[in-house]
Amino acid sequence: MVNIEHIQYVNATASQVYQALTTEAGLAAIWTQELVFTAEVDAINEFRFGDETPTKMQITKLTPNQGMSWLCVNSDPEWIGTSVHFQLHETGGKTSVTLRHTDWRELTDFYRFCNYNWAIFLLSLKEYCEAGTGINYQVRKF
Amino acid sequence: MVNIEHIQYVNATASQVYQALTTEAGLAAIWTQELVFTAEVDAINEFRFGDETPTKMQITKLTPNQGMSWLCVNSDPEWIGTSVHFQLHETGGKTSVTLRHTDWRELTDFYRFCNYNWAIFLLSLKEYCEAGTGINYQVRKF
Repeated sequence: MVNIEHIQYVNATASQVYQALTTEAGLAAIWTQELVFTAEVDAINEFRFGDETPTKMQITKLTPNQGMSWLCVNSDPEWIGTSVHFQLHETGGKTSVTLRHTDWRELTDFYRFCNYNWAIFLLSLKEYCEAGTGINYQVRKF
Repeated sequence: MVNIEHIQYVNATASQVYQALTTEAGLAAIWTQELVFTAEVDAINEFRFGDETPTKMQITKLTPNQGMSWLCVNSDPEWIGTSVHFQLHETGGKTSVTLRHTDWRELTDFYRFCNYNWAIFLLSLKEYCEAGTGINYQVRKF
C-alpha cells in the first residue's frame, strides 16, 4: 500500500479549521462548489469536479476540533477503497493539519497528481481560514 | 526508504520549463532569491531560506529539456543524502513535471511538510512559466 502524507500549518484555531473542513460552506470554498455534505458519521457525501466521476466519501470518524476520516466509496477507480484522514492539533492559536490519504494500491501518475492536489487543498484551506477566500476547483487554473 | 512523488502540468514548452528550473533567475523566482546556481554536472549549488541551514545541492544529472537530478550534500539532517529528480515530458505545448525526492530515511512531520512544500514549488514553477511571477520563499506566507 502507498500513502500520501502532508502537514500544513494554519494561523487559526483548531475550531476554525474544523469548521472549514466539516461544513458545506467551508468545503465549497476550499474544494468544490458542487457538493452535498452532512457532518455525521456514516453520511456519504458527494463532491463533483466537472465531468469526472462524482467522488463519494463516507464519514468514518468525526471528532470535534480534532479530526475527521473518510472512506472513498465512489470516484476514480484508484480512489475507491482508500481513506482520507484529517488530524488537527492547535498550539498557541496556530493549528497543524495532518492529511493522510491511505491505502493506494499502486504508485501511479494519478497518485502523483493527487499528492500535488492535496497540497493545493491544504493551501486553499489555509487561505480560506486566514483570509476568507479558498482556491476551489471552480477558480483553479489547470 | 520513503520517497516524495509529485506530477504537475505546466502550459509551456519543455524548453521553457527547463530554463526556469536550471537558471539562477528561474530558481530565484520559483524557490528563493538567496541562491548560487550554476547549471553544470557536479556543481554544488546553494539555496538559503532565512535562518535555516543553507541547502547545498550537487547536480548529478542534467539533460537539456528533459530533466535534472540533485544530491543533497548539506541542509536539514533529514535531507542530507537524499536526491531530488525533475523529469519533463512535453505533449502538445503542455509539459508534465515529475518531481521525486527520494531516499528519505523516515516518514516524519518534516517529510510531510516538505511534501506539501514541493507541491508549492511546483505551483510556483507553473505560475512563473505561465504568468511570469513565481511564489518564492520571500513572498510566501507561512
